[in-house]
Amino acid sequence: MSDKKIPYKIYLEENEMPKAWYNVRADMKNKPAPLLNPGTHEPMKPEELAPVFCEELIKQEMDNDTAYFDIPQEILDYYKTFRPSPLVRAYNLEKKLGTPAKIYYKFEGNNTSGSHKLNSAIAQAYYAKKQGLKGVTTETGAGQWGTALSMACAYFGLDCKVYMVKVSYEQKPFRREVMRTYGAQVTPSPSETTQIGKKILAEYPGTTGSLGCAISEAVEVATSTEGYRYVLGSVLNQVLLHQSVIGLETKAALDKYDIKPDIIIGCAGGGSNLGGLISPFMGEKLRGEADYRIIAVEPSSCPSFTRGKYAYDFCDTGMVCPLAKMYTLGSGFIPAPNHAGGLRYHGMSSILSQLYDDGYMEAVSVPQVKVFEAAEEFARVEGILPAPESSHAIRVAIDEALKCKETGEEKTIVFGLTGTGYFDMVAYEKFHDGKMDDYVPTDEELEKYISKLPKID
Amino acid sequence: MSDKKIPYKIYLEENEMPKAWYNVRADMKNKPAPLLNPGTHEPMKPEELAPVFCEELIKQEMDNDTAYFDIPQEILDYYKTFRPSPLVRAYNLEKKLGTPAKIYYKFEGNNTSGSHKLNSAIAQAYYAKKQGLKGVTTETGAGQWGTALSMACAYFGLDCKVYMVKVSYEQKPFRREVMRTYGAQVTPSPSETTQIGKKILAEYPGTTGSLGCAISEAVEVATSTEGYRYVLGSVLNQVLLHQSVIGLETKAALDKYDIKPDIIIGCAGGGSNLGGLISPFMGEKLRGEADYRIIAVEPSSCPSFTRGKYAYDFCDTGMVCPLAKMYTLGSGFIPAPNHAGGLRYHGMSSILSQLYDDGYMEAVSVPQVKVFEAAEEFARVEGILPAPESSHAIRVAIDEALKCKETGEEKTIVFGLTGTGYFDMVAYEKFHDGKMDDYVPTDEELEKYISKLPKID
Repeated sequence: MSDKKIPYKIYLEENEMPKAWYNVRADMKNKPAPLLNPGTHEPMKPEELAPVFCEELIKQEMDNDTAYFDIPQEILDYYKTFRPSPLVRAYNLEKKLGTPAKIYYKFEGNNTSGSHKLNSAIAQAYYAKKQGLKGVTTETGAGQWGTALSMACAYFGLDCKVYMVKVSYEQKPFRREVMRTYGAQVTPSPSETTQIGKKILAEYPGTTGSLGCAISEAVEVATSTEGYRYVLGSVLNQVLLHQSVIGLETKAALDKYDIKPDIIIGCAGGGSNLGGLISPFMGEKLRGEADYRIIAVEPSSCPSFTRGKYAYDFCDTGMVCPLAKMYTLGSGFIPAPNHAGGLRYHGMSSILSQLYDDGYMEAVSVPQVKVFEAAEEFARVEGILPAPESSHAIRVAIDEALKCKETGEEKTIVFGLTGTGYFDMVAYEKFHDGKMDDYVPTDEELEKYISKLPKID
Repeated sequence: MSDKKIPYKIYLEENEMPKAWYNVRADMKNKPAPLLNPGTHEPMKPEELAPVFCEELIKQEMDNDTAYFDIPQEILDYYKTFRPSPLVRAYNLEKKLGTPAKIYYKFEGNNTSGSHKLNSAIAQAYYAKKQGLKGVTTETGAGQWGTALSMACAYFGLDCKVYMVKVSYEQKPFRREVMRTYGAQVTPSPSETTQIGKKILAEYPGTTGSLGCAISEAVEVATSTEGYRYVLGSVLNQVLLHQSVIGLETKAALDKYDIKPDIIIGCAGGGSNLGGLISPFMGEKLRGEADYRIIAVEPSSCPSFTRGKYAYDFCDTGMVCPLAKMYTLGSGFIPAPNHAGGLRYHGMSSILSQLYDDGYMEAVSVPQVKVFEAAEEFARVEGILPAPESSHAIRVAIDEALKCKETGEEKTIVFGLTGTGYFDMVAYEKFHDGKMDDYVPTDEELEKYISKLPKID
């Protein structure tokens, strides 16, 4: 490590920002499995995806070989309004923990969407605009993605229809107003506005919704409305591609100070933040140039990596989307209502699933009370009020730092602080009032949905 | 101006951050009038202020001569966790407006308090800790100051009791949870926990509270509780001193690119942000080294500069605090309940009042619907969802930029974007639903309170 004093926050200069996204698939020996047509079980062709997705994004989705994609100037210009994001040295947290470990976090929450989601939202809105579309539809869980897409659509003058998981819609009443400020139309899901929404409501009256269900509704509206396409905030290969900007900036900032991380930690719902953060590091690992411990952290109430099955599954509850091979809990799985925040998707990015299956990364699941304890400890010393999702990574970063305290090892830990918790105060209130609990699904409950996975030869 | 390309965001390096606060009083020919003892009408002595305020802060409050105060290392260390704040070139807003003006804003909202208030909160908490106190009490209006102080107290391990103006407490239910996350105790004001609160409730049943009233309660608790002192987030000279860090950073960032502003705009409630932002520029103006148009923007529902009287008045509704000479609407004045956000204080910083009276700055008042229109326009192109308070400055910055569009002048406009509106969605919702109006007090209503100003020879 260099002798340069490391500042609290490492900012890249504007001209040091990445000008291309990195596609980790180019360096994977075992490529992520292709999307399958749900009817034929054959790999999806671009023309089959075209009614759902934007053309340029389909190319990015299916390209397992091109290592770098130039970021269009229009997207770079918008990136400059909220990027580069700081890589923060957690001096105060280290001191509080009394650990010899050096802790860094890449903080993606300093924009109005409150998270990293804006990195992909602005890219997807740009390609939709370029294709001459009128608007896009999407789902949102915790609300960051919906907010990010609303912002992106406002910037490019696109119409934006958001289906928001009902439990989040109710827990986060103000998220809707933020999206409205950016001109979006927000509907709680499941809703009566779609065929699939009506069907789900009839089958599961009183359901609090799920990402899988909201996806089905958004896809239905996109494919049945002239000039619209569907966009997704996580899981897809294209999203991980856009999010690689997180990891590229992180690596550039670390390289500036000759810092080499030992452990890289990220929370994982659909995998967009984790996939983006680790991309360039994973690339080095895949090429045999460096080694890192990479840890995915998921909620024990929605444990797709740690207790799911690696298999083809539907991406949505309504089973209208293509099949993806991924670690999954089954497309019918919905986390218990006591689960706060995001990270509630039943599946996981195909890229990350393949990397995990190939042994390139680890995964742990953590219970939510422990997550909020970490969140509060972090907030009090580092200032930032973290999102519940991000706090999963904080929990494991603290745990790893405390192990270093026992062993005396001066490990360098980098984690992704994906966002802020300003719209999660209902969950924080539950935590403060001792009303939060740690519901963990039983094996029987999980088996109920996993047993229904589609049979693919 | 230099040929260097100006980035979207100008960040100072950590080692370029100010190491001393600048005290504009040192350069004022007409010093701000001293605080008076409410009984004797004699200038307050330090020992008379000691039961209320921390010792070191009293020194800062009363020192009209020292130009620079070194920032203690402990405060610098905390500043580094959220400062320097970016000076942003509003390229997207300029383009949207089609103006030849160059617009910059100093963005203070990238910290969990959501505003510039943390600059003074951490300073005041530090001095309280240094004095060996157990805790501090304060009031909060919009909630930013209370949040900032909670964060600062958590960092230094101090107890924190916050009296929150009742209307804000109700409009911003989640602010309380943020403060609780940092361990603060939050009480809506007026409350039954103090003598003055009981008295005000008896006199004005159903009152939605005011900053003046919350101050009275907080002061009562501080002076009647062992080991506690009272701290204030605005108005006071010491607060403007701490907030000079905003202006010093702004000036350093502009100087880096040889940019000279023509117009500097800030919203004004008690004056802390505006006073901090303009400090070094005003210093140059006072010393005859440069000239700038400096504009204070206030809500037309609480127009202390534009329709108040420059006179001695009580700082609080309960009339327990010292008297300050300031532009005031009378300590009994409470803005109409339809007024959203902060900027609801009846008076104004003595420093700014003197500078305004001496003709060194201008003031305008703006109605709130126009303010929210500017907020939304800004949010959609610049990304950031602004606080209602900050949006007063946006309104006038846009208006000035549009004047440049008419005249073709390439003026450089700098304004203070004090914070984010993430906790103001009730107000945004009213705006979206067309339920916001522009109540402006009549002359008779204002005269009712101004006529009750204390008579000082």
